[in-house]
Amino acid sequence: MNATIALLTDFGTRDTYVGVMKGVMQRITPDVRFIDISHDIQPQNIRQSAFALLNSYRYFAPGTIFLVVVDPGVGSTRKPIAAQAGDYTFVAPDNGLLSEVLAEFETVSAVELTNPAYQLTPVSNTFHGRDIFAPAAAHLAAGVPLSEFGATTKPVQKALLPPLHIEGSSIRGEILYADHFGNMVTSIGTLRWSDERHLTLTSRFGGGAGQSPIIDAQHAILNVKNQIITGIRRTYSEVERQQILLLVGSSGFLEIAMNQGSATQHLSLSSGDPVELQIG
Amino acid sequence: MNATIALLTDFGTRDTYVGVMKGVMQRITPDVRFIDISHDIQPQNIRQSAFALLNSYRYFAPGTIFLVVVDPGVGSTRKPIAAQAGDYTFVAPDNGLLSEVLAEFETVSAVELTNPAYQLTPVSNTFHGRDIFAPAAAHLAAGVPLSEFGATTKPVQKALLPPLHIEGSSIRGEILYADHFGNMVTSIGTLRWSDERHLTLTSRFGGGAGQSPIIDAQHAILNVKNQIITGIRRTYSEVERQQILLLVGSSGFLEIAMNQGSATQHLSLSSGDPVELQIG
Amino acid sequence: MNATIALLTDFGTRDTYVGVMKGVMQRITPDVRFIDISHDIQPQNIRQSAFALLNSYRYFAPGTIFLVVVDPGVGSTRKPIAAQAGDYTFVAPDNGLLSEVLAEFETVSAVELTNPAYQLTPVSNTFHGRDIFAPAAAHLAAGVPLSEFGATTKPVQKALLPPLHIEGSSIRGEILYADHFGNMVTSIGTLRWSDERHLTLTSRFGGGAGQSPIIDAQHAILNVKNQIITGIRRTYSEVERQQILLLVGSSGFLEIAMNQGSATQHLSLSSGDPVELQIG
Repeated sequence: MNATIALLTDFGTRDTYVGVMKGVMQRITPDVRFIDISHDIQPQNIRQSAFALLNSYRYFAPGTIFLVVVDPGVGSTRKPIAAQAGDYTFVAPDNGLLSEVLAEFETVSAVELTNPAYQLTPVSNTFHGRDIFAPAAAHLAAGVPLSEFGATTKPVQKALLPPLHIEGSSIRGEILYADHFGNMVTSIGTLRWSDERHLTLTSRFGGGAGQSPIIDAQHAILNVKNQIITGIRRTYSEVERQQILLLVGSSGFLEIAMNQGSATQHLSLSSGDPVELQIG
Repeated sequence: MNATIALLTDFGTRDTYVGVMKGVMQRITPDVRFIDISHDIQPQNIRQSAFALLNSYRYFAPGTIFLVVVDPGVGSTRKPIAAQAGDYTFVAPDNGLLSEVLAEFETVSAVELTNPAYQLTPVSNTFHGRDIFAPAAAHLAAGVPLSEFGATTKPVQKALLPPLHIEGSSIRGEILYADHFGNMVTSIGTLRWSDERHLTLTSRFGGGAGQSPIIDAQHAILNVKNQIITGIRRTYSEVERQQILLLVGSSGFLEIAMNQGSATQHLSLSSGDPVELQIG
Repeated sequence: MNATIALLTDFGTRDTYVGVMKGVMQRITPDVRFIDISHDIQPQNIRQSAFALLNSYRYFAPGTIFLVVVDPGVGSTRKPIAAQAGDYTFVAPDNGLLSEVLAEFETVSAVELTNPAYQLTPVSNTFHGRDIFAPAAAHLAAGVPLSEFGATTKPVQKALLPPLHIEGSSIRGEILYADHFGNMVTSIGTLRWSDERHLTLTSRFGGGAGQSPIIDAQHAILNVKNQIITGIRRTYSEVERQQILLLVGSSGFLEIAMNQGSATQHLSLSSGDPVELQIG
């Protein structure tokens, strides 16, 4: 079977950067398949890339190689690494962007990418995506074992996502970002419906881990900059057109949305704004 | 031969939605090929997606599966369906977006997508693209027969595109949208050149069907919000640089364009503005 | 081995144009692979497409077919051509956009694309990408020899990129464009590090060719609209966060950049602004 390389970068699609990386990889391993996760991570936003990877990797076939390049420290001392965990391999700068996803696995093997045989030389100082990361992903796809690329290393661990604060009936988090539809995605998650009316919360981030509070969806109240939104809905269609609502997004995080409209355009909210969910 | 899935959505390319759908599909049928038609349909704009599909599907190879997700009613009672017509299969929410394209075929077989064996469970309320539509497209690509997915259904028929009004020498339609180059695409079509100077009009939409008026290109006059544009040109280069002109677009619809410039930036026109073509 | 077609256009990704071209090609040669270089060349900007092609083609596998459509003269008398040079084939309108890339090869074979057997008929006046260029690329990928497409022709040669003026210790060029990260890419190149402190300049464009001046990186001074930037750095991390610096970009051209920020947002500079580098 042909290997698949899934790409996640902040390179945009206006310049030739992504196409050049794919050319480099296809030259090394002609039958490789590419799937673009996104190239529109906000420039240098490591947190956003970590969150995007965490919420998408599990949907890919075993054996998929993830090429993730959001690299504000290109050319500095941060290491280029490849890490194998479960059935997946991740190739990225070691700046913490893999922290959240690797924390999902019991066993992780990682190496620093130093072997010049698997690099484009001379290696530039400004485009390691082309010169180090893409060649490594392609050689991995071609079957080169991880140990060939360099010495074992321990990936940096950084808490990139904001911790949830759960105290009694109050859950405090923040707004992470607005998606393409204008939904404001919050850090309150992972939420799952346990029955028609109740949700459970399992927080991976911060002090609330393991508490699993039960939330009565109808009586939950979100306070964000003194705006109050009542009730967590199952679907957009539970409210009128152009009305604001709370929803569990497709990755299990609480979202502030608008039925057939853009919540972002109607509310004055930004990334980082604190949100508080009252569940009692 | 490997199946091809052509994707048309309003998901944008900034988030991980499209990449996740492709991951889901490739996991089910590893050798599938993807072609992106567009992911930048205006959010929830069913009409735009219907027009885009109508004007692009015929260029794809027989056997292509179209995955079309523009779904303002996700989570509500609208049905998820798959429809086979001619050599093509269409997977979409049954909200009318397939009306125009299915009307081109004499025989259509459609089923509601209800079989949980071909869904990602638990099915979310907000991302049927990932949980219902993408798995269905992938299983169809892998050769699962249509009848396995659910019971036969009759797709919703909706007149999404505005009707043309043809009275004597007047043809009245409206502006549909502006394309990437700033051309304003109107609902006046399908136009075909019958000789160097004359065009025929075959309208699929509304009262004019079957009338096929002959249009003298040089003497045609378009009136849009009291701006007058004279003559339908064969090419941009018939007018000076930065001059406004009328053209027959690549799908056969009349367009208001500018030679080497953006008509949209120079005229104050919007989607829905009425246009009247005088052909006598 | 399956052929690869690399696409570079100004078609954008909002409309169906790119998807339709891929459908047309895959219908002709089902096993073809596509790599998108970019579809966001500024509309009708031939220079930008020539520069993008020049800096990316060499990273692709031998045998790659480049489909490059930036075509302000569509429907006029400019010829559609295909050119073979080295291990690559280029399919494009003959408006000069191939000048720079073909100048890199000793031998070029080119034909005009006139054979209707390899076109979609009737050929429209507005979308030769779909009707002439894409079918030609696909038939070339399927193994049709170049000579089958039409008579031999000599591609137009145009100096699209601005010449460098090298006089004594002064190198004068201009700003070409801003990339996705907000870096201002200048026409001063190709620069290569000869040791830790010095750069050599090999200009392909204009009077300086062959002079190869040696540049002391630390003492180089750029003057752009009376703003002075001192020193060419090896990496972003040599300056503080949000500080402006000079860098050699990944294609070897001098760039005005900002560490972890957008130079474009902080400087009032535009494409075409003159820059002068003092190297003595």
